[in-house]
Amino acid sequence: MASQQREISVSEFFAKSHHLLGFDTPQRALLTAVKEAVDNSLDACEEARILPEVWVELAQLTGGRFKVVVQDNGPGIIEAQIARIFGKLLYGSKFHRFAQSRGQQGMGISAAGMYAQLTTGVPMRVLTRVQGQAKARELLVSVDIQHNRPNIHSRRQLVWEPLHGTRVELVMEGEYPRGRHSIALYLRLVAIVNPHVTLHLCEPDGTEWCWSRQERRRPRVPPHIKPHPSGVELGTLIRMLKASKHRRLGAFLREEFSQVGDKHGREIIARADSGLSSHSSTHRVSHDKAVALHRAFAETKLAAPRTNCIVPIGEQALLRGLAREFPARFMTALTRPVAVYRGHPFVVEVALAYGPKDAPHVEVDEHGHLRRAGQLGPGASAHEPIRLLRFANRVPLLYQQSHCAITHAVSHVHWQRYGVQQPEHGLPLGPWTLLVHLASVWVPFTSEAKESIADYPQIARELELALQQCGRRLASHLRKEGKLEGELARRSEIERYLPHVGQALQDLLSLDDSARERFVTEANDLVEQQRGQS
Amino acid sequence: MASQQREISVSEFFAKSHHLLGFDTPQRALLTAVKEAVDNSLDACEEARILPEVWVELAQLTGGRFKVVVQDNGPGIIEAQIARIFGKLLYGSKFHRFAQSRGQQGMGISAAGMYAQLTTGVPMRVLTRVQGQAKARELLVSVDIQHNRPNIHSRRQLVWEPLHGTRVELVMEGEYPRGRHSIALYLRLVAIVNPHVTLHLCEPDGTEWCWSRQERRRPRVPPHIKPHPSGVELGTLIRMLKASKHRRLGAFLREEFSQVGDKHGREIIARADSGLSSHSSTHRVSHDKAVALHRAFAETKLAAPRTNCIVPIGEQALLRGLAREFPARFMTALTRPVAVYRGHPFVVEVALAYGPKDAPHVEVDEHGHLRRAGQLGPGASAHEPIRLLRFANRVPLLYQQSHCAITHAVSHVHWQRYGVQQPEHGLPLGPWTLLVHLASVWVPFTSEAKESIADYPQIARELELALQQCGRRLASHLRKEGKLEGELARRSEIERYLPHVGQALQDLLSLDDSARERFVTEANDLVEQQRGQS
Repeated sequence: MASQQREISVSEFFAKSHHLLGFDTPQRALLTAVKEAVDNSLDACEEARILPEVWVELAQLTGGRFKVVVQDNGPGIIEAQIARIFGKLLYGSKFHRFAQSRGQQGMGISAAGMYAQLTTGVPMRVLTRVQGQAKARELLVSVDIQHNRPNIHSRRQLVWEPLHGTRVELVMEGEYPRGRHSIALYLRLVAIVNPHVTLHLCEPDGTEWCWSRQERRRPRVPPHIKPHPSGVELGTLIRMLKASKHRRLGAFLREEFSQVGDKHGREIIARADSGLSSHSSTHRVSHDKAVALHRAFAETKLAAPRTNCIVPIGEQALLRGLAREFPARFMTALTRPVAVYRGHPFVVEVALAYGPKDAPHVEVDEHGHLRRAGQLGPGASAHEPIRLLRFANRVPLLYQQSHCAITHAVSHVHWQRYGVQQPEHGLPLGPWTLLVHLASVWVPFTSEAKESIADYPQIARELELALQQCGRRLASHLRKEGKLEGELARRSEIERYLPHVGQALQDLLSLDDSARERFVTEANDLVEQQRGQS
Repeated sequence: MASQQREISVSEFFAKSHHLLGFDTPQRALLTAVKEAVDNSLDACEEARILPEVWVELAQLTGGRFKVVVQDNGPGIIEAQIARIFGKLLYGSKFHRFAQSRGQQGMGISAAGMYAQLTTGVPMRVLTRVQGQAKARELLVSVDIQHNRPNIHSRRQLVWEPLHGTRVELVMEGEYPRGRHSIALYLRLVAIVNPHVTLHLCEPDGTEWCWSRQERRRPRVPPHIKPHPSGVELGTLIRMLKASKHRRLGAFLREEFSQVGDKHGREIIARADSGLSSHSSTHRVSHDKAVALHRAFAETKLAAPRTNCIVPIGEQALLRGLAREFPARFMTALTRPVAVYRGHPFVVEVALAYGPKDAPHVEVDEHGHLRRAGQLGPGASAHEPIRLLRFANRVPLLYQQSHCAITHAVSHVHWQRYGVQQPEHGLPLGPWTLLVHLASVWVPFTSEAKESIADYPQIARELELALQQCGRRLASHLRKEGKLEGELARRSEIERYLPHVGQALQDLLSLDDSARERFVTEANDLVEQQRGQS
């Protein structure tokens, strides 16, 4: 048996289980490939302070194969890195730091290339140009699956029009996804939460879409942060002690953690109470002393992690983005303050669009008059679950809705309190859209496919607080709408009787028809004005 | 930015996201550690043809830490392999082959050690003795997380009583799980589907459990099989061609795939129709020719994979195992024939235990007489979902029930047809237990934590067929039970009137009391006998 024991490379592992990375069905494979490439493009543009513009193109080839092209106006990739970024799993710039970014695993785009390779055997074509380079670099690259290293099939320089940018081309088996997992919907959702981005899509049937940027203001680039002591596991602390380039414990604590200054460092060391000092050698801290240090981390009151490392979308941008795609009678949005789970800062944002705008119950016209402008049909929409849009670090989450902390939080809120129907343990019902965004330096996804968020209690609590706050605003709107409804009913009564009063007056005072009509109109206006003031 | 690009080791990846491997909550961490160690023990024993006996012991230490000990009577591990098996992720004997076994990733036990290390910093203690060795080997080992390689803290030989076996000791943070995720329940479920295994458990409070083996017959050792052409992806075929030690295409097809003989090999090559022959060099097959070969795989009619590679539990063993833990009025079990998904053979087994035995509606006593022996209470149980027990390769699945192909299949069957209540899209209701087992050379788990099975259509279909077949048997039983119910009602009528008839006869014929009683008893017996014959 012993002779059969063998090392398994991470690419062999995921090649055999590519469904773990979001490549399970032919439809989802295409969406995942687009998603991973677009995530990379947007991250790269933002880090380089470039307003992102991304072109996505899908073309159907023979035999159930598709060509997937994603091109950006990003900074381009230097030659030395191209092969490893696209030809090796678990390689990237985002894993070994804490910063809010779309990618965090260093696995997405190389996994898409690996899936292409598994299903069609065609290597990925990467074309990239860094500003200032005379020519672009072209690489045909695939993953050497047995060794998880890049396999370069060809490499050349060529003339390419864009001054800077990257273009990725994949040929993979797939089926073009439709409906709620379609690529057009995905990009539309990306546009909602990334108002500074312009996206183009060309579908296999030739349909072209463009979502233009709504604002030219780039989001602030979130800085990297060091780990916060409250989120560091004992084993990680021991590892950091051993690997630190800081020889002295005082410097180690101050330089390798966030929110630990000299004072707090001394306090931690004193609390650990195990013969350590600021001058102790980090490489010689014994296991027991490390345990004591780790306990002191928990016992020392430190400031929460700095909050500038999170860049929320913002209430105004959320409202604008949502209004463009889901215009509604009532909209509200809120961004919660920064909170912390396991030492990682995060922010929850919620936006809500209630009731389709083209079918309002009651509205006020330009003269301030009430109008019953349309009827909210008793149709299915009022008895169907709301439309829930989930996002993490500005990336839409389309799969695994039922396992996501966001969905759980929405189901746990008692929406009946806010005047909304809700089945037990379910999503609320009604013709509205709820957008929930989690931004964090480390989003705890439940799988490598990054489609749902794990149930950390701190995250669940922030989600519920945000949802309840939105719920209260919705309730207040619904009360007002109810009041307007009642108002309209009363007004109808008056409207119905006024002509009779007019007729009686005409008879009594022998008025002519025009005088009677003038009376009815003026009385009507008077009533409306009074209502308007009340 | 380029300078920040770095390689990420697989252990760094999983250390940061240990919830992916089943180490998310403190309760689940303990259960997962026990599960991974027990899986390894049972696999090792069976491969070595040893009747397995496993001792599990948990002890609570200070500070929320637990000591987890799992010891087996397995074959032991040779010295050269110990460190890598326990100190390196993705290392093992089961990944690079197709054979039915509990482990398949080479990640479980080293991940448990890594979690122990992260939470307490204590390395794993491994004690192992191979039969014939004078002394046992002891290793203290942890994972060098940055490089995914074993870090050996100490190594020595010592006297150890067992002639062969392996003992693993872990110290990790945790909480002792209770209820439906408890370790006792887990081992009880293991015992149900592994009747040849003896399990011992010592809980932290000193409670001791033992599940003794029910049979001394060891299950057949499932042979490894080669991949079946129908399940091989194009990229895999290209990789196999390049890596094959067979130089000629004919030998390659015959030796590296199952169910391809010389005849089929020639047929595949002919169908590929691209200038290839049996003598073509495998290393020189161009991409286009490989595509043609791959297409020919799909077009050539080959025998299904051999079925002897699957060792089902068997209907009798299932019934015995289930009866021991869930005695019931009605029990049935079935093992489906071997089926295939993506070239991988698999078998579905279902067993059903209906109605608690101590509360039957009606039963027949030793004289063949009907007795209403108890009443099935109208209590909650009849209106609660059934107890669903899921297993894959003889391993119980305790988490992620709602995302599992087994649960989906049970919910999709129309149980109302079989006389069982069922809410829409839900599990059927009632006081019964349903056991479903999937055995395969490669179980498609939806995550590395191996807690639920992916929805492959072929697997879903086999599951539904098996469940429907069980459903029909249940329906037939329920009809019979219903008939008996009606019978009992009619009999009560007769019973109620017979004394009156006896009284009338006594009056009419001036019988004495004993004659009247004798008449009533005999008439009663007569009626019952007739009912019994009808």
